[in-house]
Amino acid sequence: MEQMTDRNRRLVLAQRPTGMVDDTTTRLEVQDVPAPGPGEALARVRYLSIDPTIRTWMDDAPGYLPPIQIDEVVRAGGVAEVVESNSENYSPGDLLFGMTGWQDYVIADDGARAMQPLPPGVAPTTALSAFGITGMTAYFGMLDVAALAEGDVVVVSGAAGATGSTAGQIAKTKGAGKVIGIAGGPQKCAHIVDELGFDAAIDYKSESVGARLHELAPDGIDVYFDNVGGEILDACLANLALRGRVALCGAIAGYNDRGGAHAIANTSMLIIRRGRMQGFLILDFLERFPEAQAEMAGWLASGEVKSSEHVVDGLEHAPDALNLLFTGGNTGKVIVKV
Amino acid sequence: MEQMTDRNRRLVLAQRPTGMVDDTTTRLEVQDVPAPGPGEALARVRYLSIDPTIRTWMDDAPGYLPPIQIDEVVRAGGVAEVVESNSENYSPGDLLFGMTGWQDYVIADDGARAMQPLPPGVAPTTALSAFGITGMTAYFGMLDVAALAEGDVVVVSGAAGATGSTAGQIAKTKGAGKVIGIAGGPQKCAHIVDELGFDAAIDYKSESVGARLHELAPDGIDVYFDNVGGEILDACLANLALRGRVALCGAIAGYNDRGGAHAIANTSMLIIRRGRMQGFLILDFLERFPEAQAEMAGWLASGEVKSSEHVVDGLEHAPDALNLLFTGGNTGKVIVKV
Repeated sequence: MEQMTDRNRRLVLAQRPTGMVDDTTTRLEVQDVPAPGPGEALARVRYLSIDPTIRTWMDDAPGYLPPIQIDEVVRAGGVAEVVESNSENYSPGDLLFGMTGWQDYVIADDGARAMQPLPPGVAPTTALSAFGITGMTAYFGMLDVAALAEGDVVVVSGAAGATGSTAGQIAKTKGAGKVIGIAGGPQKCAHIVDELGFDAAIDYKSESVGARLHELAPDGIDVYFDNVGGEILDACLANLALRGRVALCGAIAGYNDRGGAHAIANTSMLIIRRGRMQGFLILDFLERFPEAQAEMAGWLASGEVKSSEHVVDGLEHAPDALNLLFTGGNTGKVIVKV
Repeated sequence: MEQMTDRNRRLVLAQRPTGMVDDTTTRLEVQDVPAPGPGEALARVRYLSIDPTIRTWMDDAPGYLPPIQIDEVVRAGGVAEVVESNSENYSPGDLLFGMTGWQDYVIADDGARAMQPLPPGVAPTTALSAFGITGMTAYFGMLDVAALAEGDVVVVSGAAGATGSTAGQIAKTKGAGKVIGIAGGPQKCAHIVDELGFDAAIDYKSESVGARLHELAPDGIDVYFDNVGGEILDACLANLALRGRVALCGAIAGYNDRGGAHAIANTSMLIIRRGRMQGFLILDFLERFPEAQAEMAGWLASGEVKSSEHVVDGLEHAPDALNLLFTGGNTGKVIVKV
């Protein structure tokens, strides 16, 4: 086992950001490593999952979880390795998944701070991407919320991102007629078509999304898996097919600018096309993770779904890693190696 | 039988309106009464159903039916009485429901222009309101699309209108915890509470809808039955409860002003609240009308659902009757007695 640091570095929320996070958003604190109490285990954080939702937790606004409080460690999922245990549920060396936060050490218990063992044979980075919240979000969003059917014309935004790239590949694997990805820049567009098997890509930075959708999906969009909200959501609604379904996974376009978010002009297309638009939270599907993970394991083994990760080194770079999601600087799942 | 006019008056679309319909929108033509061919019947139109959707058909815009063509008779549902028949399906004196259009006479056949007999004992005006498209829209919109559950907090807009008033009463009858109607003016608000049994009313003309919703539904809205779209839809989304459902029935706020329709700022609440917003078209539920009509018959008999009609006299007043829907000049179902 590698040598433990004897101090716990933690990034706490210093002040709420108004746009992207910057140097003033978080503050590095160095504390003693916490001692595990009875029934508790101490675990060293190895990897952090960097997700758009973290940015939403930094706002003092209603959400599915309460906002992160000022001076509280930034909330995040991650993988940690047990180093000391007073619980029969955890043994030194165990790799655990759970809400670790942006810090070096975390306490796991059998109650509210319980953590889950990683499935055997699954690498920590895969546990945070294809087998984790990201992959499960893509799976249930595409198959359950959007109710993908064979032959469907599917559009995915944020298509080179962690969730979008997985959602598009799942659609293809499950028999979609055509999968169109929307991404920013020629490299990402080439990546999703050449490497991931999307049928077509739209570069929202250089092309008119509405015009291209009209060309690529002349009979309309059956399923739109939305990671961005805003103008791209509006363009997809305008091109919705009869009984089209929109799965609202994220609205990244508005996360850094709540007041200025683009309002949606085309909701009445839901009436004209008898369409459905539905938001979801992956935590509602926790009980069904095993079935999805079993199917995902097969796809990863066969290469039908490829998981790509963008690893950033060092806890202190977690804020920059978060910003990558909004500048589009990543291809695949962003993970911080602590 | 009353004496037949011997000429067929018909209101055809003269030019597409840009806002409300006016004198230049339709043109009265007087033609010979058509002679029924083999397998056809001639029927005298008695009542016309006046619905917001007629206004949408006047635009040259995509919809669930093609636009009404210039010089074509204005499309509308209605009740007609058979006066002459060469078909074994129709006999003189039969009352039929179907797409009659704004005219005195209509030809029914056994194919594309087939018409349905009225259920025995049902008055023509009731056939166009509670038993007709209006009542069925309220029924399936509330129970199927919005999936009303016992105890739900329900909001209905256009609550003094034909569909809204029925939808609210159905929710109450089916065990909603609270039914809040949004209507324009103190008389309509008093009507839905005092006569129709709504729990509360919001007068959008004199009250802040958002503030009042927050007061009346402090734990959020489980079901919103939307007849209007625009700002009221946005306010309801902002107050959506966890797993709230929005049934999009109409967007009357935008029908006369497509370009200037209010864009929706709060679609991301569908993610935060894991909500669903769904458009529907009652024609998709045709096969299930009998079950709904059976239940509706019981409610009408017991008085649990009251049907109110606003009858306008004379075919020539059909355009004014249509405008009533947009000025809010009606309480209950607008019907033209031809």
